[in-house]
Amino acid sequence: MSSAAQPWLQIDETHDPALTSWVAAANDPATDFPVQNLPFGRFRTATNPAPRLGVAIGDQVLDLERAGLVEPGSDLNALMARGPALRRTLRLTLSRGLRAGSPKQADWAAALVPMAAAELLLPCRVGDYTDFYIGIHHATRVGRLFRPDNPLLPNYKWVPIGYHGRASSLIASGQGFRRPNGQSMPPGATEPRFGPCQRLDHELELGILIGSGNALGEPIPVDQAEDHVFGLTLFNDWSARDVQAWEYQPLGPFLSKNFASTLSPWVVTLEALAPFRQPFTRPEGDPAPLPYLDSKQQRASGAIDIGLEVHLQTAEMAGRGQAPARIARSNFASAAYWTIAQLVAHHTVGGCNLQPGDLFGSGTLSGPGEGEGGSMLELTEGGKRALELPGGETRTFLQDGDTVILKARCERAGARAIGFGECRGTVLPAPGMAISAV
Amino acid sequence: MSSAAQPWLQIDETHDPALTSWVAAANDPATDFPVQNLPFGRFRTATNPAPRLGVAIGDQVLDLERAGLVEPGSDLNALMARGPALRRTLRLTLSRGLRAGSPKQADWAAALVPMAAAELLLPCRVGDYTDFYIGIHHATRVGRLFRPDNPLLPNYKWVPIGYHGRASSLIASGQGFRRPNGQSMPPGATEPRFGPCQRLDHELELGILIGSGNALGEPIPVDQAEDHVFGLTLFNDWSARDVQAWEYQPLGPFLSKNFASTLSPWVVTLEALAPFRQPFTRPEGDPAPLPYLDSKQQRASGAIDIGLEVHLQTAEMAGRGQAPARIARSNFASAAYWTIAQLVAHHTVGGCNLQPGDLFGSGTLSGPGEGEGGSMLELTEGGKRALELPGGETRTFLQDGDTVILKARCERAGARAIGFGECRGTVLPAPGMAISAV
Repeated sequence: MSSAAQPWLQIDETHDPALTSWVAAANDPATDFPVQNLPFGRFRTATNPAPRLGVAIGDQVLDLERAGLVEPGSDLNALMARGPALRRTLRLTLSRGLRAGSPKQADWAAALVPMAAAELLLPCRVGDYTDFYIGIHHATRVGRLFRPDNPLLPNYKWVPIGYHGRASSLIASGQGFRRPNGQSMPPGATEPRFGPCQRLDHELELGILIGSGNALGEPIPVDQAEDHVFGLTLFNDWSARDVQAWEYQPLGPFLSKNFASTLSPWVVTLEALAPFRQPFTRPEGDPAPLPYLDSKQQRASGAIDIGLEVHLQTAEMAGRGQAPARIARSNFASAAYWTIAQLVAHHTVGGCNLQPGDLFGSGTLSGPGEGEGGSMLELTEGGKRALELPGGETRTFLQDGDTVILKARCERAGARAIGFGECRGTVLPAPGMAISAV
Repeated sequence: MSSAAQPWLQIDETHDPALTSWVAAANDPATDFPVQNLPFGRFRTATNPAPRLGVAIGDQVLDLERAGLVEPGSDLNALMARGPALRRTLRLTLSRGLRAGSPKQADWAAALVPMAAAELLLPCRVGDYTDFYIGIHHATRVGRLFRPDNPLLPNYKWVPIGYHGRASSLIASGQGFRRPNGQSMPPGATEPRFGPCQRLDHELELGILIGSGNALGEPIPVDQAEDHVFGLTLFNDWSARDVQAWEYQPLGPFLSKNFASTLSPWVVTLEALAPFRQPFTRPEGDPAPLPYLDSKQQRASGAIDIGLEVHLQTAEMAGRGQAPARIARSNFASAAYWTIAQLVAHHTVGGCNLQPGDLFGSGTLSGPGEGEGGSMLELTEGGKRALELPGGETRTFLQDGDTVILKARCERAGARAIGFGECRGTVLPAPGMAISAV
């Protein structure tokens, strides 16, 4: 399939690095939201509490209803269902209208809401959420904690490993969540303990949001898979490691993952990511993907160069006005063992149907090196080596009051840098459990 | 908590075994739907294709809109969200109106639709679906195939094991589904094969549908858990055993379970099941549940006596007009290691929020004996011993054209027997895979 049939891969006038916007802050080289990005989200304000669609531009949100671009009451799921052609048309309209000198400025200026005054919501309704495990350095490092000589299981290089997650407990960036209570089996104990999780962790992931779906029983071929992808977000799949270790045999993680998962508000479209595509290769000697997962197009441009960072701010740091500290960095292209298209093709190969707004988590995207672990489990070698924070505090796992912030940014010579904003969550104390006398 | 605060446990005039209905077929001793049952569902007809709510009575469906009992366009989720008090009031209204001699007969007779003329739909919108694994004889028998000396894992008697399932691929009883294609690793092979599943299986489960939900971060105590349960259905969690064996490490089943799961149309309420409650006990010597899972009320009446059956009809059998053959039977009360209330309490103990219409699968409900396995995996000892069918055919796993029918019925001295109707699904051939040349 040629790239002409894949409009999201084409570089067009919307990507021109010379473009500037009449929204001044969009021209700041440090902004995540220049006029070349144009990510979609949902927001509301104190004065207008109805959720509505918006596009991030600099430090502002363009209200798409107010700008006359969508019907009142539209949700992102409807736009997602329409597929890439409409999305690309809308991108072009937005790009032209937000450019410096656009005749739309007079109209659209009234449709801007300062992002600081907006409550950013979950971008869409997520029907089903699947979490993958495509970060090979994460899988290797975590596997090594359990099986030093044989960290990767035999299926890893053949099967894009994934499992179904809980959609109801997805929360928007900025929301706190309570540390979960749960069962765990302490080393050497003969009976499980019950109480607040003692090994609470974050996971640095990307969220992949599905655009148009497929009918039950009708797999999506890998070469058509990106046609069904709307865009990407940041995603933090909070994890209770002590609960997970005790509960996960034989059917996988359950309560250890379903108490909260944080999604960032802005969906960066495949079109915005076009300049950051690169060839997708497997390490020398690794098996070729089975035919249903293999494609020339994916080998040519299936990877996306997205720089990733994790920042941590403890309550003490916040109290003394100290900025969050960066505790890890990595990159999607080098962390991921499978492409997004391969995930879509695999998920549907048995006939499973995807629906607009469905979420895939990538799995933890760690790099191979020191300071590249996308979870505390990795950064502290399973809690054995404390992480030192500015100001003298240390952490093995997350404590109450800790805020974790994920960031992502695409930077490449010849392209305007774009970013994902942030995915932020704060750990609140576990609820007291009023266990009734029995 | 006294049973006065738990109206769904109370035996009242709606349970009187002497009650008869003006709908003649409801008085047939063999019907699943006497006036003492009154399960809720959703249906449509060729002449009125709008889905609407109904109640099964004998061989008829009472159209609740037409009978003036719900607003036009109502869905079951809204009724579920209202909780048990409203549900019980509606049951009483239905019972009085459908009884022999009711003055409602003249009005409501026009609201009857023959069940044979109705398309029975999924009863509600399922936001999230969780599959548990509480059938201890199933877990033991399946565990023995892998670990003969130590079939049950150490967490089994402490943790109600469960995992998140796929909601989008839930289908209504009567729908066929395509055999999935997928990866598996044949014994002795060094590379996985790809193709149609060769070990396709059914699973005899009950579905538990949630009524009112809970807020994120606010666990439901075990003694309040049944307050959040609407009712029960039959549930067949179709499984691709060869795919499962290859993919499930370390994060659990994924494609092996998400290609289709069949839910029966009629939701039997907790009120209808009140006469079939019994004490819930654990085998002598087993550990007591942790306090958050333990309750006097559950020990007194947490179990429900529901007889279960699996029937199989091959395409050949159907072709010669031969009735489905019963291949297994068991009972919910003796198969389940945990009560429904314990599942609700466990699912929410870490803060996970449930929503009206959420589905729990019980896990496969096998008995301990010969002919009591709720899956082909058990009935054929992992495919080693073929099952003989009437007419000379044999089966290890399911073949294309096979129809599996689950049934359930509650029978007890002093009570009118009630049933669940059937949960029926037919295996269709796998789709051809047009793998693009790479």
